[in-house]
Amino acid sequence: MKYKEYAEDIARLITSGELKPGQRLPSVRELGAQRGLSPVTVLKAYHRLEARGLIVARPRSGFFVAQRATQLLMPPRSAPVTRATPVRKSDFIYEILHASKRPEVVPLGSAFPSPELFPHARLARSVSRAMKRMDPWRAVTDLTPGSAELRQHIALRYQIAGVAIDADELVITDGAMEGLNLCLQAVTQPGDTVIIESPTFYAALQAIQRLGLRAFEVATDPVHGMDLVALERVLQRQRPAACWLMTSFQNPTGASMSDERKAQLVQLLAAHDVPLIEDDAYGEIHFAGRRPLPAKAFDKTGGVLHCGTFSKCLAPGYRVGWAAPGRFAQRVQRLKLGATLSTSLPAQLALQDYLAEADYDRHLRAFRATLQEGRDALLEAVRAFFPEGTKVTRPEGGYFAWLELPSSIDTLELHRRALQHDISVAPGAIFCAREDFSHAVRLNYGHPENRRVNGALKRLGQIAAELTQPA
Amino acid sequence: MKYKEYAEDIARLITSGELKPGQRLPSVRELGAQRGLSPVTVLKAYHRLEARGLIVARPRSGFFVAQRATQLLMPPRSAPVTRATPVRKSDFIYEILHASKRPEVVPLGSAFPSPELFPHARLARSVSRAMKRMDPWRAVTDLTPGSAELRQHIALRYQIAGVAIDADELVITDGAMEGLNLCLQAVTQPGDTVIIESPTFYAALQAIQRLGLRAFEVATDPVHGMDLVALERVLQRQRPAACWLMTSFQNPTGASMSDERKAQLVQLLAAHDVPLIEDDAYGEIHFAGRRPLPAKAFDKTGGVLHCGTFSKCLAPGYRVGWAAPGRFAQRVQRLKLGATLSTSLPAQLALQDYLAEADYDRHLRAFRATLQEGRDALLEAVRAFFPEGTKVTRPEGGYFAWLELPSSIDTLELHRRALQHDISVAPGAIFCAREDFSHAVRLNYGHPENRRVNGALKRLGQIAAELTQPA
Repeated sequence: MKYKEYAEDIARLITSGELKPGQRLPSVRELGAQRGLSPVTVLKAYHRLEARGLIVARPRSGFFVAQRATQLLMPPRSAPVTRATPVRKSDFIYEILHASKRPEVVPLGSAFPSPELFPHARLARSVSRAMKRMDPWRAVTDLTPGSAELRQHIALRYQIAGVAIDADELVITDGAMEGLNLCLQAVTQPGDTVIIESPTFYAALQAIQRLGLRAFEVATDPVHGMDLVALERVLQRQRPAACWLMTSFQNPTGASMSDERKAQLVQLLAAHDVPLIEDDAYGEIHFAGRRPLPAKAFDKTGGVLHCGTFSKCLAPGYRVGWAAPGRFAQRVQRLKLGATLSTSLPAQLALQDYLAEADYDRHLRAFRATLQEGRDALLEAVRAFFPEGTKVTRPEGGYFAWLELPSSIDTLELHRRALQHDISVAPGAIFCAREDFSHAVRLNYGHPENRRVNGALKRLGQIAAELTQPA
Repeated sequence: MKYKEYAEDIARLITSGELKPGQRLPSVRELGAQRGLSPVTVLKAYHRLEARGLIVARPRSGFFVAQRATQLLMPPRSAPVTRATPVRKSDFIYEILHASKRPEVVPLGSAFPSPELFPHARLARSVSRAMKRMDPWRAVTDLTPGSAELRQHIALRYQIAGVAIDADELVITDGAMEGLNLCLQAVTQPGDTVIIESPTFYAALQAIQRLGLRAFEVATDPVHGMDLVALERVLQRQRPAACWLMTSFQNPTGASMSDERKAQLVQLLAAHDVPLIEDDAYGEIHFAGRRPLPAKAFDKTGGVLHCGTFSKCLAPGYRVGWAAPGRFAQRVQRLKLGATLSTSLPAQLALQDYLAEADYDRHLRAFRATLQEGRDALLEAVRAFFPEGTKVTRPEGGYFAWLELPSSIDTLELHRRALQHDISVAPGAIFCAREDFSHAVRLNYGHPENRRVNGALKRLGQIAAELTQPA
């Protein structure tokens, strides 16, 4: 497998721009001698890079870095928006998502990483052991806010990461989804306005629609996150009831705010007495050395309602998340009691046992490394196969990348045509209340074991190219 | 244990009225001879009945049936109400319920039966087996509407009971609580009016408050359920968005509508195009031979949104329920996706395995018999220990009885004083939007293994008696 490692080395040089588009690569013989590799190894590495579209072979001249290799790294920019909008997209979003559900579809539009990346057997052992030992009275005592031991484990992980969250503040929820919904409900009344990102996670749009709220979309940079100058302007003119955003590895763009910008965000909202609902579903899936601090770490007034989950990084389907709702903790607890009473006990106890007995951090390291490879492979394929002018983000965590295609391409049409080829994508239209991002698309790189992904990306690039042709 | 059986025989004769208040029981010697029992056995049986307050010993005269033995079986009546009311009680309800949560409190006010009545070990085996075998992709494929096999098992049980519900109509929910909330949301907009029972399950009041709806309370007979004449009058004058009720073994009264009345209810609502949200959480806990038909069995227009659960009769804490929302099924599915995405997989798969492999009906038979004994013991204790003028229902299922105390008694004060003696009750005030039922109380007879229950009922009767005295 030496050739694979070697191919990765070169891919990194291309991605980082050290090898420029059009630049000639060393000949197979040269490089073999220089690195102590057999010519066969070098050739296999080159063919691998060629298959990904990162390099091209020119007959009798050798191998060259493909054109358009760096421009794709430029972040796309999202447009500022200046009015609050009622949301009417929920059904449309469900139709799009539903269309992609057939098992034969290559899930580039999926919201989930591959279920094969999780420690199911180890979790099954935990659930067995926990349920065998369970005191029946836990069915009553572990009602909302949830198992005390589980809350302690979660609080401990935050403390290790440098965030002071007390177990008593935590409310166990049915995934982050329920936590976010309850937090939003805790701080709003029908008719209120909520500030969201643009583009934003579609569940925020759906929640806003369900609760009869209005969305105020604030421009969000696909690399650095929400535009704080734009936010401040909005706060000076509006009285929003809340601000809901994803501060690290945002869905759909992969954007992350720096610590400094998170601190600024919290301060700005506190100054205007606007609660912040922080969706931190992806914080544990970082490719750099340390877990990014959430905005919650900078909260001094109890105004940050922070939500996390095990669904994305450990136990999909178990539906265990949590909220740390600051000064709204009691209100969220009561809403949880009324909504679903409490979170499923086998799942709570399994996670409690896993956190106490298994090596969660080892799982996370392997999981992150796999997703990072998936990201790199996706970026290379986009670079190789997508039309001139395509831009793509390079997220430092999570499993989504955001593409902006040439502006003549309607990604709803891309979605329709791709589905005919059994490929799903998440078109930009489902990530905003208004009609922006019609040429953008979210792609999932969390299925690296799926052998059809590369072919699907190639096909998708072709469809996109067809769509740039005048009809 | 012969004396226990014999005591039960006599208790039944007293409950049914065959033995009248004041009537003398056969002497120990007479009866021993007649029945072939030792005098010690008879004496132990009589002492047991005396401890329960069913009979009294008069020195040198023998044993007599206690006074006030039959009048307690007369059903209390609830008052009609004629205006829609905004609900503002949610916090108050939580405070009352929270006060009763200490483990040393005798849980007469609890909403749950004893956790010791459920087949935990068998369920633990099911969850182990199911999770060991699980295909990881179920985390994606078993998303809402939920596991297809589990839905088939549930549909089959309905078919056996004579209710045609298709597995495709079912949406698995996080307990009946979530199902009811989603069904209510599916058919209402903020500001709408919802018809509820009076008294009603407090979760209905809380849901109505959360969604910004108004409650229209219709008088509900504690034996026969909602007053259909009153309902018809309301329907002629109002345009309610929905009617929410519990048709069998209602919480809090234990009332059940007959098949005929259920059919009439469904027809009446359909004629006015008002969806019926049917909470059938207790249908499986019947003391008579067959499961009562739900109103859903009489639905011809798809207008009944029926909700059930495993939480009350099989797997408390697992949080698995379901909705059969008729023509609103797709809407409820989408609301579920947006609210909690899907129901916890270990719990879904455990129940699926249990229903396929274990003897659910055997568990149910034992469970029902235990609760029926609990009911009889409660009725006897109420008869023995509570003040003259107390009325109590005699439910044919579930684990709640409804008491109406002499009208001078404020059951909020009873609740407060009882708590000082580590006894909880559920005061009537939490079961209505307005200020009715201030002298009523719901008592839980689902803790027959708790040795402190009889003493607590005796003490409660004393407190009630104190409260009848002018201060």
